[in-house]
Amino acid sequence: MNGARSWLETANGHADFPLQNLPYGVFSHGGAAPRVGVAIGDSILDLPALLARGLLYGLAADAVAAMAGGTLNAFFAMGQGPRLALRQQLQELLEETSQQRARVECCLLDSADCSLHMPARVGDYTDFYVGIEHAKNVGALFRPDNPLLPNYKFVPIGYHGRASTLRASGHPVPRPRGQSLPAGQGEPTLAATARLDFELELGVWIGPGNALGEPLPIGRAGEHVAGYCLLNDWSARDIQAWEYQPLGPFLSKSFITSISPWVVTPEALAPFRCAQPSRPHGDPQPLPYLWDEHDQARGALAIDLQVWISTAHMRSVGLPAERLSQSSTLAMYWTVAQLLAHHSSNGCQLQPGDLFGSGTLSGAQPGQYGSLLEMTQGGKVALQLASGEARRFLEDGDEIILRGRCHREGYASIGFGECRGRVQGLGERA
Amino acid sequence: MNGARSWLETANGHADFPLQNLPYGVFSHGGAAPRVGVAIGDSILDLPALLARGLLYGLAADAVAAMAGGTLNAFFAMGQGPRLALRQQLQELLEETSQQRARVECCLLDSADCSLHMPARVGDYTDFYVGIEHAKNVGALFRPDNPLLPNYKFVPIGYHGRASTLRASGHPVPRPRGQSLPAGQGEPTLAATARLDFELELGVWIGPGNALGEPLPIGRAGEHVAGYCLLNDWSARDIQAWEYQPLGPFLSKSFITSISPWVVTPEALAPFRCAQPSRPHGDPQPLPYLWDEHDQARGALAIDLQVWISTAHMRSVGLPAERLSQSSTLAMYWTVAQLLAHHSSNGCQLQPGDLFGSGTLSGAQPGQYGSLLEMTQGGKVALQLASGEARRFLEDGDEIILRGRCHREGYASIGFGECRGRVQGLGERA
Repeated sequence: MNGARSWLETANGHADFPLQNLPYGVFSHGGAAPRVGVAIGDSILDLPALLARGLLYGLAADAVAAMAGGTLNAFFAMGQGPRLALRQQLQELLEETSQQRARVECCLLDSADCSLHMPARVGDYTDFYVGIEHAKNVGALFRPDNPLLPNYKFVPIGYHGRASTLRASGHPVPRPRGQSLPAGQGEPTLAATARLDFELELGVWIGPGNALGEPLPIGRAGEHVAGYCLLNDWSARDIQAWEYQPLGPFLSKSFITSISPWVVTPEALAPFRCAQPSRPHGDPQPLPYLWDEHDQARGALAIDLQVWISTAHMRSVGLPAERLSQSSTLAMYWTVAQLLAHHSSNGCQLQPGDLFGSGTLSGAQPGQYGSLLEMTQGGKVALQLASGEARRFLEDGDEIILRGRCHREGYASIGFGECRGRVQGLGERA
Repeated sequence: MNGARSWLETANGHADFPLQNLPYGVFSHGGAAPRVGVAIGDSILDLPALLARGLLYGLAADAVAAMAGGTLNAFFAMGQGPRLALRQQLQELLEETSQQRARVECCLLDSADCSLHMPARVGDYTDFYVGIEHAKNVGALFRPDNPLLPNYKFVPIGYHGRASTLRASGHPVPRPRGQSLPAGQGEPTLAATARLDFELELGVWIGPGNALGEPLPIGRAGEHVAGYCLLNDWSARDIQAWEYQPLGPFLSKSFITSISPWVVTPEALAPFRCAQPSRPHGDPQPLPYLWDEHDQARGALAIDLQVWISTAHMRSVGLPAERLSQSSTLAMYWTVAQLLAHHSSNGCQLQPGDLFGSGTLSGAQPGQYGSLLEMTQGGKVALQLASGEARRFLEDGDEIILRGRCHREGYASIGFGECRGRVQGLGERA
């Protein structure tokens, strides 16, 4: 399979969506209702159409029947078996050797003609904080000698986020208003945020889940991952600084959270789960409920991540987007299975379509930071762009693009597509 | 209407559900699917049955048609107009003077024969912290000289909670396991919580809501309240102390949250919104987005609240439940309209069926506390029960019952029914 080619030429060598990826998403085309498709090369394969033509059978047909409502929740609930069966049949249908090429071609649409939507209804959204370099970088702004809090290496730190304002890539990002305390003042004001930031994160879609009161054991937790996406946890730093004590971030984060719309499966990512987990020698051994030899042996996810910016000025003079950062999911201090085992350890019910964010995934060095907060040392040092512009925080018209790709010798590379959002000033709204 | 009587005798003078209340809930009876009903005296009025018999018309009939799925979400989305129309027709049908008594009687079920469920699917659950005496009491445990943080009197403090583990009254409360740091130790352990607590709160059901990026103005925010309930924000204090820095409470709260199942409407509570808002002279004036003269003039909600306990021992020897506390919603530092205006001020989308918790509603004096944390000074002073037992935190088999009632001279009293939950030890589970 690793070197297999498709009869669909745009799939072969495609930077994101070769035959080896096959991510799921919800798209619409023309005036039709949103439905589930698979990204392949520059096309989208319409799964209900494929089912209607009788090209799927058994568990794979059951899986696509579960997508009838135009969301992936019921498919996520089915777990790994039907997902594997569907992947296998889709690969056979799309491979160079397929006998069904003509019939499958009738189910392909040009991606450029389609709109993408949220792939599932999110019940609960949890944002973790397991990017250890980000935690160190941010902690050092406040506590230079002791950046990590005492619980950090024991607890996969997380908190509940807002589900209602999750949006698929491309949705405008309205600059929020909020309370903040101007420097040197004793009383707050309400104003549009002056410190708007992005955060580079990995998103994790949850599959079957657990009943209330029944924790997922670490050895089985990984089976409850339905897939992955990129996630931009837009943040208003001035609102955050004033509101967050004592209960954590609230309105500084809940105005919008953007995700890439394609759900990349654990099967597609399996070859890229190969690196050693990054738990330095001497760090405390995780408690038994967070420790599984098989999970550790399968390794850490190695996804290369990038952040790009395109300003209004850059677009107006025809300059391309500029890369701000390169990072990796190897910055995660805990595996995804550990996140699920921890989240459910108190009996908290996880449900199909719940979403986790990893927390900001920064590297330790300049050029690897996942937020402007880190790049500008809390707004103290302006970032110089090649366009001649400078940024401490985001300005209206700035567009942030997150990208994620996986490379490994001997394997076809795969990617996530984009997670894109453009800041909309208060004056631009209807 | 204030003195009106019903032909249903158990409604007249009923402590919770007289003709003047008419709260909505979702019940099941026999093996039938859950459906929406109204509590009246010792009975439940089956609304789909009432509609099927042709006893409702116009907007009221539309409202009950929107309840067809067995949840109140679509009804909440309709806002005040249909809710008022339905209330008016239900009162006419149930009043002493009704000509329809015989036909309505066929739609009544004995409450004792029915099970109650969650009244709506909760999209997002937000827990506030606006009980100012609780904030002072808890703050004083850590900062005796300066219990309130600088933002408290400017920001209606809140954070996102877990929606998937909200449960209706009566659901068992499994004692959660979690990480905590034993006193004097350098490393945490995983264990069943030893500091399980309750929190007495008011719940607020959200109605129509707002689009992303479009804050609700304070003058219209109250129209987006669909109703009220009681809420017990069960809390594991040892897990909370270890996990909550820097992002707030997470697994210490998300194992279960109990609510009373009846949705008491703003119309039923209107006569009890009569007291002066409790903003002491000299406190800062709220920012304009949180200030509305009409909202202030309508006054603060005056709901009397109580907490009761029944231990396994008390039940085994036939002792009745013992009252632990008497408090009031007058402890809220902000009005409910202010909570909605603040929550949406950044453009965060509120949706029908979202739920707010007020935060713990304690009074300033012993006997008025809404949590054991306050009653026992953080577990330092045991609480003596009349049964001869003592409690620092909850033990297995302990049942906590929250009650809420409204009284006002010249008006029929109304109540919320119970919010009840019994602690289940790890060994008691299947």
